[in-house]
Amino acid sequence: MNVVKIKSSLKNESFDLFLNWLQDDLSSVNKLILENLVNSSPLISDLSNHILNSGGKRIRPLLTLAVAKLCGYSGSRHIILASVIEYIHTATLLHDDVVDNSKKRRGKKTANFVWGNKSSILVGDFLLSKAFRILISDGSLRCIDIISKASEKISFGEVKQLMSVRKLETSESEYLNIIKSKTAELFSAACQLSSEISEISMEMKNSLKEFGRYLGICFQIIDDTLDYFSDEKIFGKEIGNDFNEGKMTLPLILLYKRSNNKEKQVLKYLVNKEKLSKKDFVNIIEKMNKYNVKNDCLDKAKHFSIMAKDSLGLFPRSEEKERIINLINYLVSRKN
Amino acid sequence: MNVVKIKSSLKNESFDLFLNWLQDDLSSVNKLILENLVNSSPLISDLSNHILNSGGKRIRPLLTLAVAKLCGYSGSRHIILASVIEYIHTATLLHDDVVDNSKKRRGKKTANFVWGNKSSILVGDFLLSKAFRILISDGSLRCIDIISKASEKISFGEVKQLMSVRKLETSESEYLNIIKSKTAELFSAACQLSSEISEISMEMKNSLKEFGRYLGICFQIIDDTLDYFSDEKIFGKEIGNDFNEGKMTLPLILLYKRSNNKEKQVLKYLVNKEKLSKKDFVNIIEKMNKYNVKNDCLDKAKHFSIMAKDSLGLFPRSEEKERIINLINYLVSRKN
Repeated sequence: MNVVKIKSSLKNESFDLFLNWLQDDLSSVNKLILENLVNSSPLISDLSNHILNSGGKRIRPLLTLAVAKLCGYSGSRHIILASVIEYIHTATLLHDDVVDNSKKRRGKKTANFVWGNKSSILVGDFLLSKAFRILISDGSLRCIDIISKASEKISFGEVKQLMSVRKLETSESEYLNIIKSKTAELFSAACQLSSEISEISMEMKNSLKEFGRYLGICFQIIDDTLDYFSDEKIFGKEIGNDFNEGKMTLPLILLYKRSNNKEKQVLKYLVNKEKLSKKDFVNIIEKMNKYNVKNDCLDKAKHFSIMAKDSLGLFPRSEEKERIINLINYLVSRKN
Repeated sequence: MNVVKIKSSLKNESFDLFLNWLQDDLSSVNKLILENLVNSSPLISDLSNHILNSGGKRIRPLLTLAVAKLCGYSGSRHIILASVIEYIHTATLLHDDVVDNSKKRRGKKTANFVWGNKSSILVGDFLLSKAFRILISDGSLRCIDIISKASEKISFGEVKQLMSVRKLETSESEYLNIIKSKTAELFSAACQLSSEISEISMEMKNSLKEFGRYLGICFQIIDDTLDYFSDEKIFGKEIGNDFNEGKMTLPLILLYKRSNNKEKQVLKYLVNKEKLSKKDFVNIIEKMNKYNVKNDCLDKAKHFSIMAKDSLGLFPRSEEKERIINLINYLVSRKN
């Protein structure tokens, strides 16, 4: 594999190249996602279309498609399975937005803000059930097992996250456990589904499971870092949301651990404050800069991205593998 | 079957007799339900225990147990499947209570009132996933199919109900479609699971599917009627909740259809009023009495209870069948 080539992928167009590679499959997935909602009620299709078309990168279904290519899979079940992954993800987003009471996602109003919490909960439930319906038509008990396991872990992770809200003493390992469940499990499932329908060795299957998990952890650390350090216009989400909600993500955990007693007291006050002012937030960012929090978070994300890459060690050099490595490099260096 | 015996079952103790019959199995179900939550987080077990111990009648898992006996099933899978039904039901209740913003259920504070909406949504999601995990360990694709179909229909029914809120022109057939999805599907699934694991003919399986569906419709009509006509102390739920939430249930649909123009205008005003006064509610009940709404609702419930009984026509006379018929009679005549 050409190291120079990988490095060049760090430029902005790297994700477009990855998308181009999978464009045909992704179009089929998008078509299938909409087709499966055609006969539902207007509320379900309006709300689902809103969230499904709100500019998400489709990273998770893209992983399913990419891994299918990596494994030399030649059928069409990966299209169905990728749509299942996107349904599960969309259901999670709908429930998350109710939970977080956030008003914007990717620069657009969240569904619960437009349609109300009630709709978000029920349509989320519907999409989750739909995902299982599709899996059952597909007919593989193993695939159902993968998704239901992920689904259980995701909600378990969300519950653990909820329990850690405003708890400044949350440890880095508790944080890692939470994001492993709430994010990395679906990344891993996205990879496992395609490995399951392919004819590859059990070792390869296990390594793809690990690959998805490490990539998911990396992805979430970057997401959590961008919530403090991204320009809203790029990130497309209210910046500082996590702090406002008292979410104990990596930047805040590191800041609290490294703060002196006086700074710890200020953080305790701020994390319990009703509504943070812009000045408060600037103060937090200044302290994070003092303690090198941003760079350390990015380094930790990179650590997991390297583990993700090494998980692919069993797979021989190929164009497909190179494109996936490029994706990892893009995800760890993304600015939005 | 002894007609006199059935009639005597209309007394209060009939449900206790039914419970006594299934007590051993029900204890096993309750034990299993709690065991499966032991290793989850305190929030999950606290919240689940709260709702699982809040005095629900366990009608749905009891149906699974009763049908297993009716089919002469002699294994232990019905215990597992009954616990799955109760998990699904509990998840629905948790999401429902968020949706309805109600403060009490069965006289107790709702989980979302105690723990917050966030917890109710996430623990509901967790219980739903748990149900699928248990089904997968059980290993029958047919049982997973039954539950995922029911789960899809339930959320679809809830969405349709949400879309009909405050729409006084909702028709009786739209109402029946909604309750068929949101309630009767799970009653039917509860019966189908036990018929699936038993060695009975396809005709019998189909008739049990119908039996559960009709019983569910009957159950929901009674529930909706009690929301207007039950004393809170007995019903254990804020009376008039449905009207306050603008839910278009049978009593209101019949009242609106039968009202003259002036009364229709009053109803339009009241259904959009922020908070109903006790006087407003008394006014509604008076109008319902004028148009014989309560009795007609009960007659309609009875109509479906008879269809439920006749669905069991293929099953020969037996003690088990008689006990189930007694249950139907109790459910259609219950006061709480």
